[in-house]
Amino acid sequence: MLYIIGLGLGDEKDITLRGLEAVHKCHKLYIEAYTSLLSFGISSHGLSHLEKLYGKPVIVADREMVEEKVDGLLSEARDSDVAFLVVGDPFGATTHSDLVVRAKQMGVDVKVVHNASVMNAVGVCGLQLYRYGETVSIPFFTDTWRPDSFYDKIKKNCELGLHTLCLLDIKVKEPSLESLCRGKKEYEPPRFMSIKTAIEQLLEVEQKLGKSAYTEDTMCVGFARLGSEDQVIVAGTMRQLLTVDFGGPLHCLTIVSETHHVEEEMLGFFSVKE
Amino acid sequence: MLYIIGLGLGDEKDITLRGLEAVHKCHKLYIEAYTSLLSFGISSHGLSHLEKLYGKPVIVADREMVEEKVDGLLSEARDSDVAFLVVGDPFGATTHSDLVVRAKQMGVDVKVVHNASVMNAVGVCGLQLYRYGETVSIPFFTDTWRPDSFYDKIKKNCELGLHTLCLLDIKVKEPSLESLCRGKKEYEPPRFMSIKTAIEQLLEVEQKLGKSAYTEDTMCVGFARLGSEDQVIVAGTMRQLLTVDFGGPLHCLTIVSETHHVEEEMLGFFSVKE
Repeated sequence: MLYIIGLGLGDEKDITLRGLEAVHKCHKLYIEAYTSLLSFGISSHGLSHLEKLYGKPVIVADREMVEEKVDGLLSEARDSDVAFLVVGDPFGATTHSDLVVRAKQMGVDVKVVHNASVMNAVGVCGLQLYRYGETVSIPFFTDTWRPDSFYDKIKKNCELGLHTLCLLDIKVKEPSLESLCRGKKEYEPPRFMSIKTAIEQLLEVEQKLGKSAYTEDTMCVGFARLGSEDQVIVAGTMRQLLTVDFGGPLHCLTIVSETHHVEEEMLGFFSVKE
Repeated sequence: MLYIIGLGLGDEKDITLRGLEAVHKCHKLYIEAYTSLLSFGISSHGLSHLEKLYGKPVIVADREMVEEKVDGLLSEARDSDVAFLVVGDPFGATTHSDLVVRAKQMGVDVKVVHNASVMNAVGVCGLQLYRYGETVSIPFFTDTWRPDSFYDKIKKNCELGLHTLCLLDIKVKEPSLESLCRGKKEYEPPRFMSIKTAIEQLLEVEQKLGKSAYTEDTMCVGFARLGSEDQVIVAGTMRQLLTVDFGGPLHCLTIVSETHHVEEEMLGFFSVKE
């Protein structure tokens, strides 16, 4: 059996009892490294918190490993219980459908243990989840690659009076261009897009396309380390949020559209202090 | 401190370690009764599973109680630790913003413990959450009240190539019209909309409005008891799903729009058996 277990958003204490029970049953534990490096302090303190709680070692599975060695992992799961641990929910912002598809093709049973995802935890600011439109991703711009497909989606959401959740880019274990040219992979340090960078890119695209999807005065909510003990949530205009120090990653951003009375009252509690 | 703690979707084992830690700290525990009656077997077995796990009594707070006695509950929370337990996530399909607003107005500190919600757990069928548009609610039709505001929202989502999550009506502790006329409140038995009823109502509205938002051949995914050990997930056309026995509540429904390759592969695993 392959257990795909959501760990939630904060730290090792956000696993559910059901998830922990499955972990105890499994003889091998993998954890996806794409987004987990920070939330679970893996880079700085090793895996000690998780491993201590679980009472067994946890193998960090980076994207390369999952892509290259997935069949090995799944063969193990055919003969015994294996857990694949993921930050948030297994089918939240980062989806693990590929893994499920491959498992089913190989005849491996899959059980999913759900948990909170950024996709539902953003509800904590008071903007109602069912008043959100399509979610967009904001990728890091480079000198030569400045995609803007999120712009029309945000515009459509606004026209429908719907809020937009913007997921911000994460670059973990990306081979550097230089090293690829030399034929020997070396990795860039991980990068996580800040709310500030996201707003700068959003405003750049608005200036370029000029269809008034939003302006510097559009109300937004910035979320940093959502679901953690030290989470920061601030509501303000794009211009205001540019000056807020949200601290370390992960960040995400909601662009606010039409609001109801209770939504406004809730946002008031998170208003930027000036 | 008022702790608002998400219990997740299945049973008592879906609480997080963080949530359980908070429960142990609190000297008084309330649980919202709107949606919890079923998932946690409260009506049939009492609260035994939860109370056994928590080691203390749990007070069922129905809508009336929350509305009428909320200030008392919040006064307690000002002086000591009180937990308000909710099914799913505190800001998922059912939001508890009103409670937070009142707490803040009374100067009571609030801490939220997130968990899985139906709003993110539907991702398990493989349709990606960021490809969903606005969520709609389907209310029970009566002889004289057959609202159709969900129709245009579904139509807009489809036009944008986005899936629609339909939340189905729940009627818990509704006073009967008859008893209200007699001046003494008596309650109707709880009712939970089935996928079958939802599809019948959807098709009735399509027939009435005739703007081709969807047809009997539109692909959908039905979810019953999502997140529970005995969950049922079936993908098929509206016509096909009308004949599927999904079993007991809670049900919800996704109307599928444009799909990517991996989404289609995933849906294949849930296809209706004919």
